[in-house]
Amino acid sequence: MAQPMEIICVGNELLIGKTLNTNAQWLAKRIATLGLSARRITIVGDDVDEISSAVQEAIQRNPRFLITTGGLGPTFDDKTLEGLAKALECKLEINEEALTMVKEKYRKYADEGKIKKAELTPPRVKMAKLPEGAKPLFNPVGTAPGVITEHGNITMLALPGVPSEMKAIFDGSVASLLKQVAGDATFFEMSIEATGVIESETAPLIERVMHDNPYVYIKSHPKGAERISRIEFHFSTTAKNSGVARKRVSKAFVQLSELIQEKGGKIKPIKAEN
Amino acid sequence: MAQPMEIICVGNELLIGKTLNTNAQWLAKRIATLGLSARRITIVGDDVDEISSAVQEAIQRNPRFLITTGGLGPTFDDKTLEGLAKALECKLEINEEALTMVKEKYRKYADEGKIKKAELTPPRVKMAKLPEGAKPLFNPVGTAPGVITEHGNITMLALPGVPSEMKAIFDGSVASLLKQVAGDATFFEMSIEATGVIESETAPLIERVMHDNPYVYIKSHPKGAERISRIEFHFSTTAKNSGVARKRVSKAFVQLSELIQEKGGKIKPIKAEN
Repeated sequence: MAQPMEIICVGNELLIGKTLNTNAQWLAKRIATLGLSARRITIVGDDVDEISSAVQEAIQRNPRFLITTGGLGPTFDDKTLEGLAKALECKLEINEEALTMVKEKYRKYADEGKIKKAELTPPRVKMAKLPEGAKPLFNPVGTAPGVITEHGNITMLALPGVPSEMKAIFDGSVASLLKQVAGDATFFEMSIEATGVIESETAPLIERVMHDNPYVYIKSHPKGAERISRIEFHFSTTAKNSGVARKRVSKAFVQLSELIQEKGGKIKPIKAEN
Repeated sequence: MAQPMEIICVGNELLIGKTLNTNAQWLAKRIATLGLSARRITIVGDDVDEISSAVQEAIQRNPRFLITTGGLGPTFDDKTLEGLAKALECKLEINEEALTMVKEKYRKYADEGKIKKAELTPPRVKMAKLPEGAKPLFNPVGTAPGVITEHGNITMLALPGVPSEMKAIFDGSVASLLKQVAGDATFFEMSIEATGVIESETAPLIERVMHDNPYVYIKSHPKGAERISRIEFHFSTTAKNSGVARKRVSKAFVQLSELIQEKGGKIKPIKAEN
């Protein structure tokens, strides 16, 4: 029911395990909370062909939104916009609005004495070269603007990889667009923890509760070693409003709790991990 | 030069941001350290068609190894092997070796008083249903065996999503296979931190050093706000042995340090972040 989205994270640092991909988790959580559904997350390196392929493959799956992170900075290996342009078969061109944003940032840094010269060197101009028809999104905490462009029914959003910049642009310019499309759709989740039962015993119980509650997704997460000591059961749903979402999850939660207790298990509610 | 690999992480919890994907980072780091190259990481939900599509798309790119994480447990939403079988156009069948592994685990748990009955219920048998021709990999810390199967030139490895189980099977059964293919190939990385320069100023310097050192990859990571206060420069290479790798990185590191100092920047070596 929820509108599908995709995320593409760009960066060699993610492919050599230098950096933990907290951006993907943060975005996925926000997307779910806003009532949309991240269907796939793809991580590729700083390579125009890899980025372009990943974007083209995502386009084939026709998500409502496609968000990229990373690769918008001034260095030569910041290649996301080049990859995006290649995928969309268009050129990169200097966007005047973006150039003004970049120019004003460096002027501000120079005024504050943080840098010596505010001049627009080629690496700085690079951050204002957007795919034809794209528009910049204001970056409140960094220099590289985000980028928005439409392709058929897909809204594409390119955000920086630096987490503080990615989050600031998302909150400032992206969240409201997503909410507009999601409407009143609401995501609701809760978790319970069971002890005294083992995962393989609870499998048929989950199946039964999900059969009786077709819009609630229940997933077991073994927490202790050997899938036997402690199990978290996570309930989630996306519904047309929060009342319906809560009611649905509560019903499934009560039913599963009773079934687990019948098997001799103990239940306690827990706060969902972040 | 390094043999290409792909990782597919399966789990709705990753797509709603409930779980931070530490598995992908851990695997990517180990793969790089072993001298291979993770080219792409794909995250999909607990859905047979999504898993199967992701596997088929990876097969098209012909990596030497494909590792999946997640979806091997006893519950109905553990669907990785079903997705794998669909992608490979083969059936799931009870593997006797895997069944023995599962049976012995539950017998052990029953002997230790951790569970009441060691019987092989359908959810337990499920963990021993592998794609035709596949073999199980011993799971030292959990019940679900890992799975290995060959497809053309691609070795496919399915590992559990529980991090302790994933790591134990990787270290026990997978690392040696990867090392055999990587041979003496060695990955080497180091980082320096610069202050007193800004990222856009250093862009042409990196480009020059990478031109002079074609096998060394250098990436700048702005650490402070606004890409201007602190920048980490990360150097990495994969070479035929560790002597060559270190020498290459050192040469590039010295050259870039000198160029940054000429611009008035200050340099200090830092330990790579994990």
